[in-house]
Amino acid sequence: MNYYAKPVARLIDELGKLPGIGPKTAQRLAFHLLHAPPEVAANLAKAMQEARNAIHHCSLCGNLTDVDPCFICGDERRRRDSICVVERPRDVASMEKARGFRGLYHVLHGAISPMEGVGPEQLNIRNLLKRLSGGEVKEVILATNPNVEGDATALYLSGLIRPLGIRVTRLAHGLPVGADLEYADEVTLGRALEGRQEMK
Amino acid sequence: MNYYAKPVARLIDELGKLPGIGPKTAQRLAFHLLHAPPEVAANLAKAMQEARNAIHHCSLCGNLTDVDPCFICGDERRRRDSICVVERPRDVASMEKARGFRGLYHVLHGAISPMEGVGPEQLNIRNLLKRLSGGEVKEVILATNPNVEGDATALYLSGLIRPLGIRVTRLAHGLPVGADLEYADEVTLGRALEGRQEMK
Repeated sequence: MNYYAKPVARLIDELGKLPGIGPKTAQRLAFHLLHAPPEVAANLAKAMQEARNAIHHCSLCGNLTDVDPCFICGDERRRRDSICVVERPRDVASMEKARGFRGLYHVLHGAISPMEGVGPEQLNIRNLLKRLSGGEVKEVILATNPNVEGDATALYLSGLIRPLGIRVTRLAHGLPVGADLEYADEVTLGRALEGRQEMK
Repeated sequence: MNYYAKPVARLIDELGKLPGIGPKTAQRLAFHLLHAPPEVAANLAKAMQEARNAIHHCSLCGNLTDVDPCFICGDERRRRDSICVVERPRDVASMEKARGFRGLYHVLHGAISPMEGVGPEQLNIRNLLKRLSGGEVKEVILATNPNVEGDATALYLSGLIRPLGIRVTRLAHGLPVGADLEYADEVTLGRALEGRQEMK
């Protein structure tokens, strides 16, 4: 049934295709866009189109970028001897927010998942090996997600990279900072125990 | 801090200006738009711009429309002797979904709210009185929201319209269909008792 003028219905429809946006939210967003000053919708539309047009994958690390190499790969102040391997571009942002890492990244664009038909050949692995062949890299930090797919991917990559004589590490498992022991799941707690460290 | 390429950061920023979209959701939506086929972003941008360009207020009822009069006011099969007054365009859609009403609508674009500085002169009331002056309308159904602002608006409109010799009614208060008496708030329950009807 059509309760709205066609352009409104179409806008609600397109908004409703976004992940996590149900029909009610789509409707609310549509009315917001129609009631707000015209530049709100115009700026959003422009940002979407510009991002789609300008953004591609960095030829070195595979991260999303509008310049090539990306601003991290192109940053002279970053260490070139360690590469942090992540699944998604958003993981680069998470790592950067944590601030601890000053090397370069490599984005796989996924993780090995036989259930979803994703094998190593679908991931950005060939470029990683090419980067490692230069001999400049001394350590690869595997920062894939701490779940089945991420662990499988880390294991696979470790098997490829360690024979090259490069140090391969994995982000530590353990209790999240600020967490409550009572509510930690037993697997996390087990890993936290396993990875316990000397008090300094 | 800037963890993303500029066009991505700008897209996340614009998405985050939408109501109910926090930074995490904005980020998820942005990556979805960047990873999905290009037509997803293009269609959404187009729908936004078309809706903004094509949509205006119906000169009769004030509803959002791309034609004038809107498709409800222009529908010959609808009764012209009753007008249902609502606060927002989305309320027209809600009433239409309920299907019970076959007359015309009038959209106020808000409700009287001294707290938010909205008085009768900011609402689409003058046009309503103009529509009522023709003598064709026999009943005005006040379907403003059942809250303080909606009730105040209904009271105000009733005071204006009843002297014209037009029947003024208000949507019934009562228990929502399928509700549980145990969880009904006492005001609703009180109104439901007050408005009790004979069993047929």
